[in-house]
Amino acid sequence: MKEIKLKNLQKRLVYSFENQNLLLQALTHRSAAKAHNERLEFLGDAVLGLIVAEILYAKFPAQPEGKLTRMRASLVNRSTLADIARELSLGELLSLGSGEKKSGGHRRDSILSDTVEAILGAIYLDAGLTATQKTVNALFNSRVDKLDPSVQIKDSKTQLQEHLQSRQIPLPTYDVINISGKDHAQTFEVSCSIASLDITANGIGQSRRIAEQQAAKQVLEMVLS
Amino acid sequence: MKEIKLKNLQKRLVYSFENQNLLLQALTHRSAAKAHNERLEFLGDAVLGLIVAEILYAKFPAQPEGKLTRMRASLVNRSTLADIARELSLGELLSLGSGEKKSGGHRRDSILSDTVEAILGAIYLDAGLTATQKTVNALFNSRVDKLDPSVQIKDSKTQLQEHLQSRQIPLPTYDVINISGKDHAQTFEVSCSIASLDITANGIGQSRRIAEQQAAKQVLEMVLS
Repeated sequence: MKEIKLKNLQKRLVYSFENQNLLLQALTHRSAAKAHNERLEFLGDAVLGLIVAEILYAKFPAQPEGKLTRMRASLVNRSTLADIARELSLGELLSLGSGEKKSGGHRRDSILSDTVEAILGAIYLDAGLTATQKTVNALFNSRVDKLDPSVQIKDSKTQLQEHLQSRQIPLPTYDVINISGKDHAQTFEVSCSIASLDITANGIGQSRRIAEQQAAKQVLEMVLS
Repeated sequence: MKEIKLKNLQKRLVYSFENQNLLLQALTHRSAAKAHNERLEFLGDAVLGLIVAEILYAKFPAQPEGKLTRMRASLVNRSTLADIARELSLGELLSLGSGEKKSGGHRRDSILSDTVEAILGAIYLDAGLTATQKTVNALFNSRVDKLDPSVQIKDSKTQLQEHLQSRQIPLPTYDVINISGKDHAQTFEVSCSIASLDITANGIGQSRRIAEQQAAKQVLEMVLS
Protein backbone atom coordinates (compact mmCIF):
# COMPACT_ATOMS: atom_id res chain seq x y z
CA MET A 1 0.00 0.00 0.00
CA LYS A 2 2.69 2.44 1.01
CA GLU A 3 4.67 1.25 -2.01
CA ILE A 4 1.88 2.36 -4.31
CA LYS A 5 1.53 5.70 -2.60
CA LEU A 6 5.26 6.29 -2.90
CA LYS A 7 5.06 5.47 -6.59
CA ASN A 8 2.17 7.85 -7.10
CA LEU A 9 4.02 10.56 -5.26
CA GLN A 10 7.02 10.17 -7.54
CA LYS A 11 4.76 10.38 -10.57
CA ARG A 12 3.46 13.71 -9.37
CA LEU A 13 6.98 14.85 -8.62
CA VAL A 14 7.89 13.94 -12.21
CA TYR A 15 10.89 12.21 -10.69
CA SER A 16 11.66 8.66 -9.69
CA PHE A 17 14.35 8.33 -7.03
CA GLU A 18 17.51 6.39 -7.77
CA ASN A 19 18.09 6.14 -4.04
CA GLN A 20 14.69 5.50 -2.46
CA ASN A 21 16.19 5.95 1.00
CA LEU A 22 16.60 9.64 0.27
CA LEU A 23 12.90 9.94 -0.40
CA LEU A 24 12.08 8.07 2.80
CA GLN A 25 14.39 10.31 4.78
CA ALA A 26 12.73 13.39 3.26
CA LEU A 27 9.41 12.04 4.55
CA THR A 28 10.72 11.51 8.07
CA HIS A 29 10.06 14.18 10.69
CA ARG A 30 12.66 14.62 13.40
CA SER A 31 10.17 13.28 15.94
CA ALA A 32 10.22 9.87 14.23
CA ALA A 33 13.83 8.87 13.71
CA LYS A 34 17.45 9.93 13.82
CA ALA A 35 17.72 9.97 10.05
CA HIS A 36 15.19 12.76 9.70
CA ASN A 37 14.62 15.42 7.07
CA GLU A 38 15.96 18.62 8.59
CA ARG A 39 19.28 18.71 6.78
CA LEU A 40 17.55 17.89 3.50
CA GLU A 41 15.15 20.74 4.19
CA PHE A 42 18.11 23.11 4.61
CA LEU A 43 19.40 22.08 1.21
CA GLY A 44 15.97 22.03 -0.42
CA ASP A 45 15.11 25.51 0.78
CA ALA A 46 18.22 26.83 -0.99
CA VAL A 47 17.59 24.82 -4.16
CA LEU A 48 13.99 26.01 -4.34
CA GLY A 49 15.09 29.59 -3.75
CA LEU A 50 17.47 29.46 -6.70
CA ILE A 51 15.11 27.69 -9.07
CA VAL A 52 12.25 30.09 -8.43
CA ALA A 53 14.62 33.05 -8.65
CA GLU A 54 15.75 31.86 -12.07
CA ILE A 55 12.19 31.26 -13.28
CA LEU A 56 11.16 34.79 -12.29
CA TYR A 57 14.35 36.34 -13.64
CA ALA A 58 13.66 34.81 -17.06
CA LYS A 59 9.90 35.33 -17.10
CA PHE A 60 9.89 38.99 -16.04
CA PRO A 61 12.85 40.65 -17.78
CA ALA A 62 11.46 44.12 -17.16
CA GLN A 63 10.76 43.77 -13.44
CA PRO A 64 13.16 45.24 -10.89
CA GLU A 65 14.80 43.22 -8.16
CA GLY A 66 12.34 44.32 -5.47
CA LYS A 67 9.39 43.04 -7.46
CA LEU A 68 11.13 39.73 -8.15
CA THR A 69 11.84 39.34 -4.45
CA ARG A 70 8.20 39.96 -3.53
CA MET A 71 6.94 37.60 -6.22
CA ARG A 72 9.27 34.90 -4.97
CA ALA A 73 8.02 35.41 -1.42
CA SER A 74 4.47 35.04 -2.67
CA LEU A 75 5.39 31.68 -4.23
CA VAL A 76 7.77 30.29 -1.64
CA ASN A 77 6.22 30.56 1.79
CA ARG A 78 4.88 28.24 4.42
CA SER A 79 1.25 28.30 3.39
CA THR A 80 1.87 27.81 -0.34
CA LEU A 81 4.30 24.97 0.33
CA ALA A 82 1.79 23.40 2.72
CA ASP A 83 -0.86 23.67 0.01
CA ILE A 84 1.48 21.88 -2.40
CA ALA A 85 2.11 19.21 0.24
CA ARG A 86 -1.65 18.67 0.47
CA GLU A 87 -1.96 18.44 -3.30
CA LEU A 88 0.70 15.73 -3.13
CA SER A 89 -1.11 14.02 -0.22
CA LEU A 90 2.17 14.10 1.70
CA GLY A 91 0.44 13.96 5.06
CA GLU A 92 -0.35 10.29 4.77
CA LEU A 93 3.24 9.42 3.85
CA LEU A 94 4.90 11.32 6.67
CA SER A 95 6.77 9.46 9.38
CA LEU A 96 6.00 11.20 12.64
CA GLY A 97 6.71 10.45 16.29
CA SER A 98 3.73 9.35 18.33
CA GLY A 99 3.29 12.73 20.01
CA GLU A 100 3.25 14.58 16.70
CA LYS A 101 0.93 11.99 15.25
CA LYS A 102 -1.60 12.45 18.04
CA SER A 103 -1.51 16.23 17.85
CA GLY A 104 -2.20 16.20 14.11
CA GLY A 105 1.31 16.87 12.88
CA HIS A 106 0.51 15.44 9.46
CA ARG A 107 -1.85 18.36 8.89
CA ARG A 108 0.39 21.07 10.29
CA ASP A 109 1.58 23.69 7.81
CA SER A 110 5.09 23.91 9.22
CA ILE A 111 5.72 20.17 9.00
CA LEU A 112 4.12 19.90 5.57
CA SER A 113 6.03 22.79 4.05
CA ASP A 114 9.34 21.59 5.51
CA THR A 115 8.70 18.20 3.94
CA VAL A 116 8.22 19.68 0.48
CA GLU A 117 11.57 21.44 0.82
CA ALA A 118 13.20 18.23 2.08
CA ILE A 119 11.91 16.34 -0.94
CA LEU A 120 13.37 18.95 -3.27
CA GLY A 121 16.68 18.70 -1.40
CA ALA A 122 16.57 14.94 -1.79
CA ILE A 123 15.95 15.16 -5.54
CA TYR A 124 18.82 17.61 -5.85
CA LEU A 125 21.16 15.23 -4.04
CA ASP A 126 19.90 12.26 -6.03
CA ALA A 127 20.02 13.80 -9.50
CA GLY A 128 21.15 17.43 -9.49
CA LEU A 129 19.72 20.75 -10.52
CA THR A 130 18.05 19.89 -13.83
CA ALA A 131 15.90 17.15 -12.33
CA THR A 132 14.91 19.41 -9.44
CA GLN A 133 14.00 22.18 -11.88
CA LYS A 134 11.59 19.81 -13.62
CA THR A 135 9.89 18.97 -10.35
CA VAL A 136 9.65 22.59 -9.28
CA ASN A 137 8.19 23.47 -12.64
CA ALA A 138 5.55 20.78 -12.25
CA LEU A 139 4.65 21.90 -8.73
CA PHE A 140 4.72 25.67 -9.26
CA ASN A 141 3.74 26.07 -12.90
CA SER A 142 0.12 27.06 -12.36
CA ARG A 143 1.08 29.44 -9.57
CA VAL A 144 3.76 31.11 -11.66
CA ASP A 145 1.26 31.55 -14.49
CA LYS A 146 -1.07 33.42 -12.15
CA LEU A 147 1.58 35.91 -11.08
CA ASP A 148 0.84 39.43 -12.13
CA PRO A 149 3.59 41.94 -11.33
CA SER A 150 1.17 44.83 -11.84
CA VAL A 151 -0.99 43.67 -8.95
CA GLN A 152 -0.91 46.00 -6.00
CA ILE A 153 1.95 45.11 -3.74
CA LYS A 154 0.35 45.28 -0.35
CA ASP A 155 -2.06 42.43 0.07
CA SER A 156 -5.05 42.56 2.40
CA LYS A 157 -3.35 40.65 5.21
CA THR A 158 -0.49 43.13 5.22
CA GLN A 159 -2.84 46.11 5.05
CA LEU A 160 -4.92 44.76 7.91
CA GLN A 161 -1.86 44.05 10.02
CA GLU A 162 -0.44 47.52 9.47
CA HIS A 163 -3.77 49.15 10.22
CA LEU A 164 -4.10 47.25 13.50
CA GLN A 165 -0.51 47.81 14.53
CA SER A 166 -0.80 51.53 13.99
CA ARG A 167 -3.70 51.49 16.44
CA GLN A 168 -2.01 49.05 18.82
CA ILE A 169 -4.79 46.52 18.40
CA PRO A 170 -3.73 42.86 18.79
CA LEU A 171 -3.28 41.11 15.43
CA PRO A 172 -5.89 38.81 13.90
CA THR A 173 -5.79 35.04 14.00
CA TYR A 174 -6.40 32.91 10.93
CA ASP A 175 -7.88 29.43 11.16
CA VAL A 176 -8.75 26.89 8.51
CA ILE A 177 -12.41 26.03 9.04
CA ASN A 178 -12.94 23.66 6.19
CA ILE A 179 -11.14 22.01 3.29
CA SER A 180 -13.31 20.44 0.63
CA GLY A 181 -12.70 18.78 -2.71
CA LYS A 182 -9.57 16.78 -3.31
CA ASP A 183 -6.20 16.82 -4.95
CA HIS A 184 -5.91 19.61 -7.46
CA ALA A 185 -9.38 21.00 -6.84
CA GLN A 186 -9.36 21.76 -3.14
CA THR A 187 -11.29 24.67 -1.70
CA PHE A 188 -10.22 26.27 1.55
CA GLU A 189 -12.39 28.17 3.98
CA VAL A 190 -10.52 30.30 6.46
CA SER A 191 -11.68 32.57 9.24
CA CYS A 192 -9.98 35.80 10.23
CA SER A 193 -10.80 36.97 13.75
CA ILE A 194 -9.88 39.94 15.88
CA ALA A 195 -10.92 38.84 19.34
CA SER A 196 -10.55 42.24 20.97
CA LEU A 197 -12.93 43.82 18.45
CA ASP A 198 -15.23 40.81 18.34
CA ILE A 199 -14.92 40.72 14.55
CA THR A 200 -14.82 37.60 12.39
CA ALA A 201 -15.12 37.03 8.66
CA ASN A 202 -14.59 34.02 6.47
CA GLY A 203 -12.82 33.76 3.14
CA ILE A 204 -12.92 31.06 0.51
CA GLY A 205 -10.31 30.23 -2.10
CA GLN A 206 -8.40 27.64 -4.09
CA SER A 207 -5.52 27.91 -1.66
CA ARG A 208 -5.23 28.68 1.98
CA ARG A 209 -3.34 31.82 1.12
CA ILE A 210 -6.08 33.11 -1.12
CA ALA A 211 -8.75 32.27 1.45
CA GLU A 212 -6.80 34.11 4.13
CA GLN A 213 -6.48 37.16 1.90
CA GLN A 214 -10.20 37.12 1.22
CA ALA A 215 -11.03 36.86 4.89
CA ALA A 216 -8.55 39.62 5.73
CA LYS A 217 -10.06 41.85 3.05
CA GLN A 218 -13.50 41.54 4.57
CA VAL A 219 -12.26 42.16 8.09
CA LEU A 220 -10.36 45.17 6.81
CA GLU A 221 -13.55 46.56 5.34
CA MET A 222 -15.37 45.99 8.62
CA VAL A 223 -12.62 47.66 10.59
CA LEU A 224 -12.45 50.65 8.24
CA SER A 225 -16.21 51.15 7.94
CA MET B 1 44.04 49.72 -18.59
CA LYS B 2 40.51 48.72 -17.70
CA GLU B 3 40.89 45.80 -20.09
CA ILE B 4 43.81 44.47 -18.10
CA LYS B 5 41.97 44.92 -14.82
CA LEU B 6 38.97 43.04 -16.17
CA LYS B 7 41.26 40.22 -17.28
CA ASN B 8 42.89 40.04 -13.88
CA LEU B 9 39.50 39.99 -12.21
CA GLN B 10 38.41 37.05 -14.33
CA LYS B 11 41.61 35.21 -13.46
CA ARG B 12 40.80 35.58 -9.79
CA LEU B 13 37.24 34.47 -10.44
CA VAL B 14 38.64 31.35 -12.16
CA TYR B 15 36.18 32.18 -14.91
CA SER B 16 36.40 33.97 -18.21
CA PHE B 17 33.10 35.38 -19.45
CA GLU B 18 31.69 34.23 -22.77
CA ASN B 19 29.49 37.30 -22.76
CA GLN B 20 31.62 40.17 -21.45
CA ASN B 21 28.57 42.43 -21.32
CA LEU B 22 27.22 40.36 -18.44
CA LEU B 23 30.36 41.06 -16.47
CA LEU B 24 30.14 44.77 -17.25
CA GLN B 25 26.50 44.82 -16.17
CA ALA B 26 27.39 43.07 -12.92
CA LEU B 27 29.88 45.88 -12.27
CA THR B 28 27.31 48.61 -12.90
CA HIS B 29 25.55 50.17 -9.92
CA ARG B 30 22.00 51.39 -10.47
CA SER B 31 23.20 54.97 -10.05
CA ALA B 32 25.27 54.66 -13.24
CA ALA B 33 23.06 53.22 -15.95
CA LYS B 34 19.77 51.59 -16.79
CA ALA B 35 21.39 48.22 -17.41
CA HIS B 36 22.53 47.90 -13.79
CA ASN B 37 23.29 44.94 -11.59
CA GLU B 38 20.29 44.62 -9.27
CA ARG B 39 18.54 41.80 -11.07
CA LEU B 40 21.81 39.92 -11.38
CA GLU B 41 22.30 40.42 -7.65
CA PHE B 42 18.88 38.84 -7.00
CA LEU B 43 19.93 35.79 -8.97
CA GLY B 44 23.45 35.70 -7.56
CA ASP B 45 22.23 35.83 -3.97
CA ALA B 46 20.15 32.70 -4.61
CA VAL B 47 22.96 30.90 -6.45
CA LEU B 48 25.44 31.67 -3.70
CA GLY B 49 22.95 30.52 -1.06
CA LEU B 50 22.58 27.15 -2.73
CA ILE B 51 26.27 26.61 -3.43
CA VAL B 52 27.31 27.38 0.14
CA ALA B 53 24.44 25.27 1.49
CA GLU B 54 25.68 22.32 -0.54
CA ILE B 55 29.31 22.83 0.52
CA LEU B 56 28.31 22.84 4.19
CA TYR B 57 25.88 19.93 3.78
CA ALA B 58 28.67 17.80 2.35
CA LYS B 59 31.47 18.97 4.63
CA PHE B 60 29.59 18.62 7.93
CA PRO B 61 27.48 15.45 7.69
CA ALA B 62 26.98 15.30 11.44
CA GLN B 63 25.83 18.87 11.96
CA PRO B 64 22.14 19.66 12.41
CA GLU B 65 20.27 22.09 10.22
CA GLY B 66 20.46 24.93 12.75
CA LYS B 67 24.23 24.79 12.82
CA LEU B 68 24.45 24.68 9.03
CA THR B 69 22.21 27.74 8.84
CA ARG B 70 24.39 29.66 11.28
CA MET B 71 27.58 28.66 9.51
CA ARG B 72 26.15 29.79 6.21
CA ALA B 73 25.16 33.14 7.71
CA SER B 74 28.71 33.54 8.98
CA LEU B 75 30.02 33.01 5.43
CA VAL B 76 27.39 34.81 3.41
CA ASN B 77 26.82 38.24 4.86
CA ARG B 78 27.46 41.81 3.88
CA SER B 79 30.79 42.25 5.59
CA THR B 80 32.31 38.98 4.34
CA LEU B 81 31.14 39.66 0.80
CA ALA B 82 32.54 43.18 1.00
CA ASP B 83 35.87 41.75 2.14
CA ILE B 84 35.85 39.43 -0.85
CA ALA B 85 35.06 42.39 -3.11
CA ARG B 86 38.10 44.19 -1.71
CA GLU B 87 40.29 41.15 -2.25
CA LEU B 88 39.13 41.25 -5.88
CA SER B 89 39.75 45.02 -6.07
CA LEU B 90 36.19 45.41 -7.34
CA GLY B 91 35.94 49.00 -6.16
CA GLU B 92 38.11 50.33 -8.97
CA LEU B 93 36.05 48.51 -11.61
CA LEU B 94 32.64 49.64 -10.40
CA SER B 95 30.52 51.92 -12.56
CA LEU B 96 28.87 54.41 -10.23
CA GLY B 97 26.79 57.54 -10.75
CA SER B 98 28.54 60.78 -9.96
CA GLY B 99 26.78 61.21 -6.62
CA GLU B 100 27.76 57.74 -5.43
CA LYS B 101 31.28 58.28 -6.72
CA LYS B 102 31.71 61.46 -4.71
CA SER B 103 30.29 59.93 -1.54
CA GLY B 104 32.72 57.00 -1.72
CA GLY B 105 30.31 54.38 -3.04
CA HIS B 106 33.18 52.23 -4.32
CA ARG B 107 34.23 51.65 -0.73
CA ARG B 108 30.77 51.05 0.71
CA ASP B 109 30.08 47.55 2.06
CA SER B 110 26.54 47.37 0.70
CA ILE B 111 27.55 48.25 -2.87
CA LEU B 112 30.60 45.99 -2.79
CA SER B 113 28.76 42.97 -1.42
CA ASP B 114 25.89 43.42 -3.89
CA THR B 115 28.44 43.49 -6.71
CA VAL B 116 29.97 40.17 -5.66
CA GLU B 117 26.51 38.61 -5.75
CA ALA B 118 25.80 40.20 -9.13
CA ILE B 119 29.03 38.74 -10.55
CA LEU B 120 28.04 35.27 -9.33
CA GLY B 121 24.62 35.74 -10.90
CA ALA B 122 26.29 36.75 -14.15
CA ILE B 123 28.55 33.68 -14.16
CA TYR B 124 25.53 31.49 -13.48
CA LEU B 125 23.68 33.00 -16.46
CA ASP B 126 26.73 32.78 -18.66
CA ALA B 127 27.77 29.22 -17.87
CA GLY B 128 25.54 27.55 -15.29
CA LEU B 129 25.94 26.04 -11.85
CA THR B 130 29.20 24.11 -12.21
CA ALA B 131 31.16 27.16 -13.33
CA THR B 132 29.69 29.23 -10.50
CA GLN B 133 30.58 26.51 -8.00
CA LYS B 134 34.21 26.73 -9.11
CA THR B 135 34.24 30.48 -8.56
CA VAL B 136 32.55 30.24 -5.16
CA ASN B 137 35.04 27.57 -4.13
CA ALA B 138 37.92 29.83 -5.12
CA LEU B 139 36.47 32.80 -3.25
CA PHE B 140 35.27 31.04 -0.11
CA ASN B 141 37.69 28.13 0.23
CA SER B 142 39.90 29.60 2.93
CA ARG B 143 36.87 30.79 4.89
CA VAL B 144 35.17 27.42 4.73
CA ASP B 145 38.38 25.77 5.96
CA LYS B 146 38.37 28.01 9.02
CA LEU B 147 34.79 27.10 10.00
CA ASP B 148 34.55 25.30 13.29
CA PRO B 149 31.06 24.05 14.09
CA SER B 150 32.02 23.69 17.76
CA VAL B 151 32.45 27.45 18.03
CA GLN B 152 29.36 29.03 19.44
CA ILE B 153 28.10 31.68 17.08
CA LYS B 154 26.54 34.47 19.06
CA ASP B 155 22.79 34.65 18.68
CA SER B 156 21.10 37.81 17.41
CA LYS B 157 19.84 39.02 20.80
CA THR B 158 23.34 38.81 22.24
CA GLN B 159 24.88 40.47 19.19
CA LEU B 160 22.32 43.27 19.29
CA GLN B 161 22.82 43.83 23.01
CA GLU B 162 26.60 43.97 22.71
CA HIS B 163 26.40 46.29 19.74
CA LEU B 164 24.11 48.70 21.60
CA GLN B 165 26.13 48.54 24.82
CA SER B 166 29.33 49.37 23.00
CA ARG B 167 27.61 52.51 21.71
CA GLN B 168 25.91 53.29 25.01
CA ILE B 169 22.47 53.06 23.45
CA PRO B 170 19.67 51.90 25.80
CA LEU B 171 18.81 48.21 25.35
CA PRO B 172 15.82 47.02 23.33
CA THR B 173 12.51 45.93 24.75
CA TYR B 174 10.75 42.76 23.63
CA ASP B 175 6.96 42.42 23.70
CA VAL B 176 4.70 39.57 22.74
CA ILE B 177 2.19 41.03 20.28
CA ASN B 178 0.25 37.96 19.37
CA ILE B 179 -0.04 34.26 20.10
CA SER B 180 -2.02 32.22 17.64
CA GLY B 181 -2.77 28.55 17.17
CA LYS B 182 -3.18 26.22 20.08
CA ASP B 183 -1.38 23.68 22.19
CA HIS B 184 1.46 22.14 20.25
CA ALA B 185 1.13 24.47 17.30
CA GLN B 186 1.35 27.91 18.80
CA THR B 187 2.95 30.74 16.88
CA PHE B 188 4.40 33.71 18.69
CA GLU B 189 4.81 37.17 17.33
CA VAL B 190 7.19 39.39 19.22
CA SER B 191 8.30 42.97 18.67
CA CYS B 192 11.77 44.26 19.38
CA SER B 193 11.97 48.01 19.83
CA ILE B 194 14.71 50.52 20.46
CA ALA B 195 12.79 53.60 21.50
CA SER B 196 15.74 55.99 21.34
CA LEU B 197 16.41 55.04 17.70
CA ASP B 198 12.72 54.81 16.78
CA ILE B 199 13.30 51.31 15.43
CA THR B 200 10.87 48.40 15.71
CA ALA B 201 10.71 45.02 14.00
CA ASN B 202 8.60 41.96 14.57
CA GLY B 203 9.64 38.33 14.62
CA ILE B 204 7.54 35.21 14.32
CA GLY B 205 8.33 31.74 15.57
CA GLN B 206 7.15 28.52 17.14
CA SER B 207 8.44 29.73 20.48
CA ARG B 208 8.81 33.09 22.14
CA ARG B 209 12.57 32.61 22.12
CA ILE B 210 12.69 32.01 18.37
CA ALA B 211 10.40 34.97 17.70
CA GLU B 212 12.59 37.22 19.86
CA GLN B 213 15.71 36.10 18.01
CA GLN B 214 14.02 36.80 14.68
CA ALA B 215 12.95 40.25 15.77
CA ALA B 216 16.40 40.99 17.19
CA LYS B 217 18.02 39.87 13.95
CA GLN B 218 15.97 42.29 11.93
CA VAL B 219 16.63 45.16 14.28
CA LEU B 220 20.33 44.31 14.18
CA GLU B 221 20.28 44.54 10.40
CA MET B 222 18.50 47.89 10.57
CA VAL B 223 21.02 49.18 13.11
CA LEU B 224 24.01 47.97 11.10
CA SER B 225 22.82 49.12 7.70
